[in-house]
Amino acid sequence: MELLKNKILNDGHALGKDILKVDSFLNHQLDIRLFEAMGEEFARRFKDVEVTKILTIETSGIAIAAVAAKYFDYCPVVFGKKNASLNLDKDIYTSEVYSFTKQQTYQIMVSKKYLNPEDKVLIIDDFLANGKAVEALEEIVKQSGAQLMGVGIAIEKGFQNGGKEIRASGIRLESLAIVDEMYEDGTIIFRD
Amino acid sequence: MELLKNKILNDGHALGKDILKVDSFLNHQLDIRLFEAMGEEFARRFKDVEVTKILTIETSGIAIAAVAAKYFDYCPVVFGKKNASLNLDKDIYTSEVYSFTKQQTYQIMVSKKYLNPEDKVLIIDDFLANGKAVEALEEIVKQSGAQLMGVGIAIEKGFQNGGKEIRASGIRLESLAIVDEMYEDGTIIFRD
Repeated sequence: MELLKNKILNDGHALGKDILKVDSFLNHQLDIRLFEAMGEEFARRFKDVEVTKILTIETSGIAIAAVAAKYFDYCPVVFGKKNASLNLDKDIYTSEVYSFTKQQTYQIMVSKKYLNPEDKVLIIDDFLANGKAVEALEEIVKQSGAQLMGVGIAIEKGFQNGGKEIRASGIRLESLAIVDEMYEDGTIIFRD
Repeated sequence: MELLKNKILNDGHALGKDILKVDSFLNHQLDIRLFEAMGEEFARRFKDVEVTKILTIETSGIAIAAVAAKYFDYCPVVFGKKNASLNLDKDIYTSEVYSFTKQQTYQIMVSKKYLNPEDKVLIIDDFLANGKAVEALEEIVKQSGAQLMGVGIAIEKGFQNGGKEIRASGIRLESLAIVDEMYEDGTIIFRD
């Protein structure tokens, strides 16, 4: 998606070979016009697929999924919660994620009320790197008996293994921008 | 706002006198049509006010703020982060919040890049109860030198002190639904 790639080139920063900072528009300050364009593009790429629910995960996936929902006929958005709250149901699906950026393992939880075997689920998230977050969401979809229709990602780090593994498993994956290489001097190279 | 009140009556649950569960449409599963209507209503109520940035806080405020932004001429949305990440700037505004539902104190952080003295800020959040989250966001706005134009809340618990204190401080507060009383039998009474 050219708009997102240009945004990454203009406003993103490669910090060394691994960390891509996009907090000026994607995950701290949010550019909602861009999010609408991304939502529209997800809908275009998955237009042959029925989606009854969008599933994402705290924190940075939420706004992207929420803005995308209108392009999927306003289907409900459900997000996996990271922290137990007094208000969360006791009857939940759970799964574990290791976050490299936060250097800790955490549980994610989804109330059983909001995913069921009739659902056709699209997973949406901001980043795909090693794929641990998507894997945890897939596990929750599996527990629910729902059908996983695909995974939509804003930025995939093509030099990490997540995308390769998801594609190899037969799950349909659409990443709006795939970064294949980053260099110390700030150069960012996208996959065509 | 009648639509939100009806949604609370139909799909919300008063658990005793204090906890209002609205996770089927507001803070776990998200009803994006409702969020658009809420965004439109915030814009109507603050139409005489210039807003250059919407500020919210992890987690449940994010989707509401993101969907509302288009009704504020697509101004950027910034959310206060609760957890330090390797990717966050070192140059940040910070402030502390005590969460009763999670029973812990946590820091929130906003990068100094995304709030500055020229900004006219609208704070948006899902719930207002004791007002600790809004107070922490106000503190961050103050640190940045930006101007706080108002606070927009989806559901205010009118029987707790947050709303009273914010109004007493002279800050403009617009809550789309104010719950004044809840009972063990599930009855919910709104302020007119």
